[in-house]
Order: sequence, then C-alpha cells, then structure tokens
Amino acid sequence: MGEMRQHPTFPRPSASAIDKARRLLERALGPSKVITSADGCAAYAGDESDQPPVSPDAVVLASSAADIEKAVRAASEAEVPVVPRAAGSGKSGGAVPVGGGIVIATIGMNSIKEISREEQIAVVEPGVILADLHAAVEAEGLFYPPDPNSLKMCALGGNIAENAAGPRAFKYGVTREYVLGLDAILIDGTRLRTGRRTVKGVTGYDVTALLVGSEGTLAITTEATLRLIAKPPSVMTLLCLFPDVRASGRAVSALVAAGVVPRCLELLDRPTLDAVRARGVGVDERAGAMLIIEVDGEPADCEVQAERVGEVCMDAGALDVLVAQDEAQRERLWEARRQLSPTTRAMARYKISEDVVVPRDKIPALLDEVAEISAATGVRMLTYGHAGDGNLHVNLLWNDPDLVPQVETALSRLFRAVIGMRGTLSGEHGIGTSKADFLALEQSPELIAIERKIKALFDPKGLLNPHKIFPRRTLEAAERGERDGGAERAPGFPTHVVAPSHGAC
Amino acid sequence: MGEMRQHPTFPRPSASAIDKARRLLERALGPSKVITSADGCAAYAGDESDQPPVSPDAVVLASSAADIEKAVRAASEAEVPVVPRAAGSGKSGGAVPVGGGIVIATIGMNSIKEISREEQIAVVEPGVILADLHAAVEAEGLFYPPDPNSLKMCALGGNIAENAAGPRAFKYGVTREYVLGLDAILIDGTRLRTGRRTVKGVTGYDVTALLVGSEGTLAITTEATLRLIAKPPSVMTLLCLFPDVRASGRAVSALVAAGVVPRCLELLDRPTLDAVRARGVGVDERAGAMLIIEVDGEPADCEVQAERVGEVCMDAGALDVLVAQDEAQRERLWEARRQLSPTTRAMARYKISEDVVVPRDKIPALLDEVAEISAATGVRMLTYGHAGDGNLHVNLLWNDPDLVPQVETALSRLFRAVIGMRGTLSGEHGIGTSKADFLALEQSPELIAIERKIKALFDPKGLLNPHKIFPRRTLEAAERGERDGGAERAPGFPTHVVAPSHGAC
Repeated sequence: MGEMRQHPTFPRPSASAIDKARRLLERALGPSKVITSADGCAAYAGDESDQPPVSPDAVVLASSAADIEKAVRAASEAEVPVVPRAAGSGKSGGAVPVGGGIVIATIGMNSIKEISREEQIAVVEPGVILADLHAAVEAEGLFYPPDPNSLKMCALGGNIAENAAGPRAFKYGVTREYVLGLDAILIDGTRLRTGRRTVKGVTGYDVTALLVGSEGTLAITTEATLRLIAKPPSVMTLLCLFPDVRASGRAVSALVAAGVVPRCLELLDRPTLDAVRARGVGVDERAGAMLIIEVDGEPADCEVQAERVGEVCMDAGALDVLVAQDEAQRERLWEARRQLSPTTRAMARYKISEDVVVPRDKIPALLDEVAEISAATGVRMLTYGHAGDGNLHVNLLWNDPDLVPQVETALSRLFRAVIGMRGTLSGEHGIGTSKADFLALEQSPELIAIERKIKALFDPKGLLNPHKIFPRRTLEAAERGERDGGAERAPGFPTHVVAPSHGAC
Repeated sequence: MGEMRQHPTFPRPSASAIDKARRLLERALGPSKVITSADGCAAYAGDESDQPPVSPDAVVLASSAADIEKAVRAASEAEVPVVPRAAGSGKSGGAVPVGGGIVIATIGMNSIKEISREEQIAVVEPGVILADLHAAVEAEGLFYPPDPNSLKMCALGGNIAENAAGPRAFKYGVTREYVLGLDAILIDGTRLRTGRRTVKGVTGYDVTALLVGSEGTLAITTEATLRLIAKPPSVMTLLCLFPDVRASGRAVSALVAAGVVPRCLELLDRPTLDAVRARGVGVDERAGAMLIIEVDGEPADCEVQAERVGEVCMDAGALDVLVAQDEAQRERLWEARRQLSPTTRAMARYKISEDVVVPRDKIPALLDEVAEISAATGVRMLTYGHAGDGNLHVNLLWNDPDLVPQVETALSRLFRAVIGMRGTLSGEHGIGTSKADFLALEQSPELIAIERKIKALFDPKGLLNPHKIFPRRTLEAAERGERDGGAERAPGFPTHVVAPSHGAC
C-alpha cells in the first residue's frame, strides 16, 4: 500500500521530554514492558486507515490496569502524548500516534474475565479479539451482536473506542448498545468505573455512552461489562441479484417499510461486483447490484422471514434470489464479503475507504452521486456496505499519484452530498485524523465548542490521543487539500512506514 | 396525598433577583406568557414523586424555542434558577423547583413536526404527549417502543430528560435508543443541535446520549428526532399465575435463558395481587405472584412464542397460564397494570415508589430482602414492575407519620441490598432530589467528580435545574434521615402544595 494524500503534520514532544518519559516509564514498568527502539516502535506506527504511519517514541506493553495507570502517570509528568492501541485495526487513524509520544498497547490484556449466563453479561479486557469473544459466548448459548468485518483481528478496546458496528447492527444495534459499564483510566491516572451490570439504569449522567465512541481521547478502557443476548437458534442467508442499484435500493426501502428486520442487509454495487468477478467468483453477468440478506430466529420464523424477503426483492425487480444451502456455503459467502476490503485494496496502488451514512431512502441518490463524482473526477469508486442502516463504504481507488487533487475533490463532493442528504460523515469508523478537518461540515461551531470543552475536562493538557476528531485546518483549507503549514516535525522517525494490508470494513 | 419524609430545603434567590427576573421575562416575552401570581405558580410546584411541591417564582409558558432562549437569557442575567418542565409526571422530583426560580413549561410545544415512513423517524417538540405520538406513528404503520405507564399524561421532553422506559423496554430498549438527535438550549441561550437523522453515526462525542437522562440539568430540549421501527403486526398477552414469587422468578430466569424475548415481562408480587383483589378484581386465590407477558411479531411467530412462554412458565411451577382472548381483554389487563400506581397510592396516607434494578437472577433474592425489611421495620411494602430487566418498583406505604424513621431505615436497607447485589438505584425514574443523597452509595467519588465537572461545563453558575442528581448531604447523614440544616428559605411561598394523584410507574 502506498500513501499519497497530503496529511497535516503535527508537533512532536521535545527530545528532553521524550527522554524523561522513557526514563519514567522504564523506572515504573521495568524495561521488559517498554519499547524504545526505532524498529520496535515502528510496529506500532500505523493502523488500517489512509493515515500515514507515524512511529511513537515509546511503546508500553500493558498487561494490567496498573501498568496503564503507571504509564499515563509517567506520560503526564513528562508531558508527552499517550495513544491507546488495542489491535490497531481502526479505519480512521485513531491509533496512529501522529504527534509521537507513547503508545499504550493493550492487546496483551486479552482475558475474558467472566461470562454469566444468568445475567447475560461478559466482562472483558480491552485486548480480547472480537472473534474470540463471539466463540466464547456462543459456546454458552449467548450472543454478542456487534460484528465489524475485521472481527478476526479487531479487539474490544478498539471496538468500544470507535463504537464499532458491522452487518448485524441493522437488527441488533451498535457497540454502544452492548456496553453496560467501563473501567477506564484518565490521563492523570484516575481510575473510573462507569455504568453498571444491569441492562437498565439511569443513575447519574451516561458517562459510559460518552466514553464509547470517544476514539481514545477521553479515557483508556481497562475492562468492559458487555450485555449479551440469547444466541438466535437459526440463521438463513439469501443472495438477491438486481439489474442495477436503483432496484436494490427499492428493495431495501420496501423491506424496511414491510417491517422485515433481517439481521444483515448488505449491498454491493456494480463496480464491487465486477471486482468480485475479477477474482474469479461467478456472479450472474446480468447482475448490477447484489443484496446479502440474513435473517435469524426460530427456524420456522426464519422460513417466514426468508419468504417475505424473497417476495419483496422479486417485487422490487430482483433477477434472482438464492438461499445458502448449508453453513459452509454461508461461511463462503461471508468470507467473500469480508474479503472485499483487502480485495479492493489490492486493485490499485492507493485506496481510501469512506464510511458515510445517509437516510435509507437516499441510498439510490447517493449511488447516483457517487457515479457522477467518479465520472467527473476520473477517480474509480466502488461502494458496498450496510444498506439497511444507510451506512455505505464508498471506496476511492487510484494508481497515479498526480490524481490526488481529484481525489480530494471527490471526497469533498462526497461529504457535501452526504450532509446535503442529511446524512453523517461516519457510521462506524470514527473521525480520527482522516475526517477531522471535515467535522465542521456536519456539526455547528456551538456543538464542536461543547465537545472541545468535554475533551479539556477529561484531558486538560491535551495529552490523550491528541489531534483526533477535532479539526486543525479550516474546512475551506481541508477542501482545497492544503497541507497544514504550521506544524513542525522532529527528525529521526520515519513518517511512511508501510502498514500491513489485512484490514476490513 | 400527604408528605411526611424530611426533605432538605434549598436556598432560594433573593427578592431583588426575583424582581429582576420577572421584569426581564415580561419584557422579553410579554405578560401573557409569564405567570407570577402565587396561585398561578403553585400549579407548577409539584410532580409525581414524594418530593414536596415547591412553588416557583415565575412560570414561562413557552410556545417556541425562541421563547425558551429568551427565558434562559433573562434567568442567566438575573441569576435565578431555571427548571424545565414538560408534563410534570416525573417520579424523582426532577421538575420540582426546589430552589425556586423560573419554571419553563414546554407542554404547550406539542407539535409532531414530522413523521417519515421512508426514514422511519419522527421529529417532535418536548410537549408532545407520549400516547399522542404512539397513536400518530401507529397510524402510519410505525412504532415508538418506549411506554412508561404514565404514557397518557407524560410528554417527550420529560421522557428524554429521564431516559424513560416502561414494560416494552425489555425487548426494545429505553428512550436513549430512540433519540437520534436533539435541538437543545443551554442556560446561556446557546442553541445546540446534537446527533443526526440516521440510525447510525459516530461523528464526534455522543452528546445526544449525554443529554438523554440528564434530568434537565444540562440543557433544555426544544426538538427531538426519534427513531421509529415498523409496527409489529400482532401481539399476544399472557397472564401467568404462580404460587409464590420464587416460582415466578425462576420463570423469568428460564425465559431469558431460553432466548424467548417477550416485549414485556411484568411481575406482581403477593402484596400487589392482594391490593388488586381488594379492588374487586378476581385473581385466583392460590396465586402468590403473577407475570404479565406479552409477545409480538408475525401472527404465526406470536403463537410459537406464546407456546414456549407457557411451557417455560408451567415448567417453572406456574399454577395457570391464561391468554387474553381479544383486544378489549388485553386493554383491560394493561389498564389494571397501569392503575397499580394510583391504586397503591390510595392504599395509605403516605407512599414512596422506588425504582431499583438488580441483575435478573437476583429478583427472588431482592423480593426476599423486601419481605425481611418490611417485617423488620413494620413498613408495608409491595413490589411490581419490569422483571425482564430486573427493574422493580418497590412501594413503601404507611399511615402513621411517626413511622418516618422506619421508612428511612427501610429505604436505606433497600438501597444497600440492591447495591450489594450489584444493581442500580434507578432504572427509569432518575435520581432527581429523591435519591440524590444516595448517589455515593453506587458511584465512586471519582465518577461523581467527573459528573460534577460535566454539569459545570454546561452550566457554570449552577442555574439549570439545580440541586438535582448530586448529593447535598453525606451518605451517612442521608441514611440517618437528617434534615439539611444549612439551607435557608425565602418566605412567601407555600412548601407543601398538594400534588394531583394521577401518576403512574
């Protein structure tokens, strides 16, 4: 993967602050938990976004909340930034230490501390891999719905920081709906326990919901109490082929209107299907769009739902509706869906994956707009994602570095179109650094001012995951693709380490 | 209804501040929208909690966001408190102007501004009565799940302030899950628009979730964008009779474990059934506990669910399982359930209705504890509520004013037992003034400190709904039932206006 968009650079700590931080960390944690070598730090430089990797000045391999507390106390004393990192699979730059400082890696804190069938909860550490949690709770007949497609590599700490979602969010909601309580550490080392173990509760402000989705800028999660539900007894997966996206969009609207609530309602547009075909997967040549629809529940109810899905899709103009015949076929289908992100990534030297949301009935209009933007700018664009929620991943692909201005234009037009349709910039990836400069497109100065005050309340010195969410440039400068001229960079660290290409969205 | 618990008194604004506020309000809003007479103000003194009514110094009858903005600007200038009030049906004192000042009544802002079938959203003003919203969206084939039993009188503004729930929360979740975005006004007159119209979205901090359930202490809602779902095509209601609460508790656990998700799962204990019988409703004399269970979905699926509910209940030791035969029978059953609050209120001179939540598997233990507390203190206690969520309304009833110390003891023991079971003080009523002094029983000093900072961020002078949520006394003083000695009261306003007894929970 290459990286050619112009990104703002950010100030880094002074050499003496870095020295002090390293010394304090090694004293507090011992040398085995602290990485300071350039090579060692480089492994914690990037995530799965288009944000260029930036090496931290030190990495703490945390194995407990006490380690994290020690690390933030050291960082606060030395006044260097702290960037929490779980699996590093984020799509918006959240875990990239753009301002240097200390990465606190929580991936080693991977214990599932409790699964209670009676209370239907799980208590997990932030480094637990989502797929491992799925397997563990399903073995108990329970179910944790959030399922970002990176589920085999992403971890709960990151899921909570970004308020991750995935296909099943259509029926079951996003991570926020499943986080009952958090143990977290503030930048000054204060331990905070928010929320509760019960499903309901309104005692005090909803600090838990404030921390979920705060992208690691307010506190570092050390433990989460998660709500589970009973595992649906059966699942059926349907593949619905349409001549074009307009027909598939009609089907999505009709399904929603009919009150059918599949657990997943995923859309693939024509360029995406072409990409799938190019990989040798046989897809009916007449198909210009596809919906992957999955229903769950009691077996008899699944049959009823599947039948209604089929009827509604055929009424909306489907060419064909196919049902996965067994679990192996189902798994192959989802594996193909999960591979879309790496597949499309391999299609060009450069790729940006966007994550916009529009009201569900605006999906055809958005896809029309994407086609127009692609034609006008010459940037190849393909779109797939969670159509049931109106949350589509618009992917921009290009090979020629000189196309960057057109890419900036395309992004800017896309964002303006989405906001014009009363949509939102991000459905599940977060703002991070990648969309920070566009925040003002969606939110008023008054709201951003309140959010900045909340940030300052939790982190008065701005040391916890700085430069995320909030814009550094004016919207106009960002739309012109201008580089941030005010920032300085300390020498000696690589800015463009190549990130591994195993992400998914 | 009488009122005999000792409540702390709170400082009130000076006479000159009140004069200034009244003058500014009348100038900004005109005399027709401002009430200052003692009689007129007294109608806005109380809510449906055990908090004694306290008359405000003025009432603003807001008919628009502009009115609210003018009112808060006047209040800020005069430095007098502002208390937002929708229907005044709250159960924790949230709308009682305990520190005097200005009540902003939003009940006149009762327009449903939009219902979109395509987007499945509604846009409402804060004075819309919940039952009116239900009727309007259901006429469009849509559904707004939250259903506090006060639904015929409560309004959306209060529902949002308290994060209201109700029986259907078991399947569908609480108000927070249905508020996509808010238009709100801060105490300094700043207009804030939070959230979005789309179901998903992670742009910036979740300020919407922070405002929902903040009990009118952070901002005043002027408009809410609500998520709707498709109306379930059919509903079935079952009445399950058990010999005792232990058996009904087993049934609740078994239903949850079996993955049956009724939309409602309501429990009535023996003293509650006796109260129902005393009103002349025929309930099988062998029954010592009752579950009202409601399932919804496709008709065929309802049948399947109902059958499983019946099997599970019989296995758990049910005496009988009855199915409501038609809509009229269903409605009578729910009307009886909704009348429980006024019914029990009429049973004694004094009543406190608590709203605790315990992990679902602790329901039998909680009911045992309630029986013990009642026996030890001599305070009559009866319990009913949302067993599926572990959210039970424990009602304390007494006639003898001299029993107040025992009531304080009973409450304190109840709260300690609930926290000991890792439950929470309030499932849906909020903390208000009624449980503020117990906050530290559940939350750490560090968490309360963060919440106080959030309050100060939105309301630096502490003018917006002051004295709610946060404790004024130490936990120890509260548990001893001590009156707050430090506060002063301005003369001239009645403290104990009799509130109308039409509340429900």
